[in-house]
Amino acid sequence: MEKTKILLDEDEMPRKWYNVQADLPTPLDPPLDLGTGEPVGPEALAPIFPMELIKQEVSQEKWIPIPEEVLDIYRLWRPTPLYRALRLEKALKTPAKIYYNWEGVSPPGSHKPNTAVAQAYYNMKEGVERIATETGAGQWGSALSFGTCLFGLECMVYMVKISYEQKPYRKVMIETWGANVLPSPTNTTNAGRQILERDPECTGSLGIAISEAIEDAATHENTKYALGSVLNHVLLHQTIQGLECKKQFELIDQYPDVIYGCVGGGSNFAGLFLPFMGDKLRGEKPDLQITSCEPMACPTLTKGLYTYDSGDVAMLTPLIKMYTLGHDFVPPPIHAGGLRYHGDAPILCKLTHDGFMDAVAYHQTEVFKAAITFAQAEGIIVAPETAHCVKAVIDEALRCKETGEEKVILFANSGHGHFDLAAYDAYHNGKLVDYEYPVELIKQSLAKVPKIE
Amino acid sequence: MEKTKILLDEDEMPRKWYNVQADLPTPLDPPLDLGTGEPVGPEALAPIFPMELIKQEVSQEKWIPIPEEVLDIYRLWRPTPLYRALRLEKALKTPAKIYYNWEGVSPPGSHKPNTAVAQAYYNMKEGVERIATETGAGQWGSALSFGTCLFGLECMVYMVKISYEQKPYRKVMIETWGANVLPSPTNTTNAGRQILERDPECTGSLGIAISEAIEDAATHENTKYALGSVLNHVLLHQTIQGLECKKQFELIDQYPDVIYGCVGGGSNFAGLFLPFMGDKLRGEKPDLQITSCEPMACPTLTKGLYTYDSGDVAMLTPLIKMYTLGHDFVPPPIHAGGLRYHGDAPILCKLTHDGFMDAVAYHQTEVFKAAITFAQAEGIIVAPETAHCVKAVIDEALRCKETGEEKVILFANSGHGHFDLAAYDAYHNGKLVDYEYPVELIKQSLAKVPKIE
Repeated sequence: MEKTKILLDEDEMPRKWYNVQADLPTPLDPPLDLGTGEPVGPEALAPIFPMELIKQEVSQEKWIPIPEEVLDIYRLWRPTPLYRALRLEKALKTPAKIYYNWEGVSPPGSHKPNTAVAQAYYNMKEGVERIATETGAGQWGSALSFGTCLFGLECMVYMVKISYEQKPYRKVMIETWGANVLPSPTNTTNAGRQILERDPECTGSLGIAISEAIEDAATHENTKYALGSVLNHVLLHQTIQGLECKKQFELIDQYPDVIYGCVGGGSNFAGLFLPFMGDKLRGEKPDLQITSCEPMACPTLTKGLYTYDSGDVAMLTPLIKMYTLGHDFVPPPIHAGGLRYHGDAPILCKLTHDGFMDAVAYHQTEVFKAAITFAQAEGIIVAPETAHCVKAVIDEALRCKETGEEKVILFANSGHGHFDLAAYDAYHNGKLVDYEYPVELIKQSLAKVPKIE
Repeated sequence: MEKTKILLDEDEMPRKWYNVQADLPTPLDPPLDLGTGEPVGPEALAPIFPMELIKQEVSQEKWIPIPEEVLDIYRLWRPTPLYRALRLEKALKTPAKIYYNWEGVSPPGSHKPNTAVAQAYYNMKEGVERIATETGAGQWGSALSFGTCLFGLECMVYMVKISYEQKPYRKVMIETWGANVLPSPTNTTNAGRQILERDPECTGSLGIAISEAIEDAATHENTKYALGSVLNHVLLHQTIQGLECKKQFELIDQYPDVIYGCVGGGSNFAGLFLPFMGDKLRGEKPDLQITSCEPMACPTLTKGLYTYDSGDVAMLTPLIKMYTLGHDFVPPPIHAGGLRYHGDAPILCKLTHDGFMDAVAYHQTEVFKAAITFAQAEGIIVAPETAHCVKAVIDEALRCKETGEEKVILFANSGHGHFDLAAYDAYHNGKLVDYEYPVELIKQSLAKVPKIE
């Protein structure tokens, strides 16, 4: 009989992260200084990141050892189970085999702690006592507060004010793990005060919160900054997902034909697909299909420009080569808050641009419809972000039903939707709206992308 | 190196539930008819329960096979991991070994689906097409809607109105799995209409919701009623927990010295301890200590009377022998809504009365303090109900630190607190209040217990 879950014992957990930079046919384009247009060296990042993470950011080593102390924490929920979605297959009457790795079993409920724990560890090792970060709806803030709590660091979270007020549960999680959390803009930073002077009622944005967190790290002693996606070292830490999955597929003598995941900044999906992508880059799996799923309201990979742009609204970060909708693009307020970023991880963007993977975009009502089909077949209520790849998987499985193909489908089930049930409620009540693909907005924001080359 | 999690493969899942009635030194006292005072036969329950569950209720067979279709659903999250709380032990500097089985990995997030799935299955097998039930804060309603969804049954949930309005997320979960949910009192039943005529603004109670659900089942075709705790067949289904735990302890060559769990109706804790209790009843483990943890605000086992009483406010159920605070006792509004029942499962009550186990009671602020210690050591944010036994475990571990005893402690980690973060918020902000042990209220409600002997 087919198993529902393929488990690994914690002794079988991978001991090294996989660094795809070693297998890329051509190297990543370096980050550039906005002023000079010249490549940025590691020293530019030293004020805000610990040295070990800066090294990982540019490393060309294929395998990076996972410290024992990080493995010890991973054991609290890893290895995560690889599920076979037998009941979904049956409901769809598809000959396809559908698998997913389930990251919702972590205490914060998503893949985010895979890097939060690692980042907290390296900061602790280098004597940092306090980390500042920003969070939108609270996924990253709760993961980092979990990580810093376990390593005894202080944590300061700048949470976008409208989320702080409307979605208080993630805030309470952050506090339960001992971190401080303030609604951004605050009056504790220059960046925050300037905004509040102009607009005392400002409800905040991720861009403002990033500015506050970076200023906090730069102006407090023994304090660094941490980012939850996009950067190479974040993707590196997330590869624990795909490495476990490869072992699990070996146990059942299978290999995926196609891999789907949702993409906001790209770290979750990259964490799953990169170890498989390595096989493709080395020519061992030329036919493997890897597809990013994004919202029509923020179609970075399907409608964006592949160029150098800033990672944040205030242009505090170096310029990075990526698909972008323009650094000041503000997408419509879809429920998948984690997919509203204007850019994507440089590694994922390069692989997409170079033709090793592709992307699709969906409207949110079709996405929630798919999530409910999934919940009623498999039980799990996924996060709205994850629901984007569930939609792609169901479509693929139905195509297989037409063609009779017995494709092996894998997708990244990145987290639960326990704090997103208001969005499901809106769907049930017919109140969920689809936003037009914002052509004019994107045209305007792309016009402001710095001209480099 | 010590493992953090002891896992079983799904092939190692127990195939039979354990029925402690076969091992009891003296039989359970039978339920009695309120009018005649005579024992109630199975036929009295036939209008509201399927025959197989009525048989299980009175069965003296030691082992009851788990149907394959139920095992198939259990595989979605079972076997659950047995955790060793290494980080909590270290934080407490205790020589004790602390273990817990983690039921929060089920899609509804608690132990409740262990019986919800079984009950939905037996109803489906007997041609029932629709199940009615009540729910307070929504734990049971969401578990039953999950179970009925997977077996293609309709489900009607009467949810206490104040919870429906103040805690809408469990309601959305129930709807996501396809069930109907109405705020009780409704105007769709006689019981509900009578209440609303007297008090149109009534915010509902579990007692009213039970009356509505039983009336619904009795007046709709092909509809039965389902109860989420207290009854013998519910405890039976929950023994899958303890049976898995015993196998996991065998794998590491350990056996608990003391077992703790929180008790509302008692099915969760009994599900964990009964297979171990069997060893004690057979004289194999005479020194095993089993302790129920309950709230000081609803101290059924520590302050109640062991006598025949009704299971519900409206006295619709037969009289059952149990510890009771009186069937119309309404406890103070503590956050652990699942521990506010006036009685307890007859099996657990008899074992307590006969001296095979004991009980302790706690105030809620000390309980939340323990839960936060646990969250900061182990990562998991537990439900307020579960937090009661976490308090007992931490106290026991600290006693072991004094005495140097290397006791093996096991506790029932029955579910996550993702929908209870408002209570954690109240704790963080110093707004959590402790309620005096309600002596006068209990005296008044005990005076109304029917006199039977």
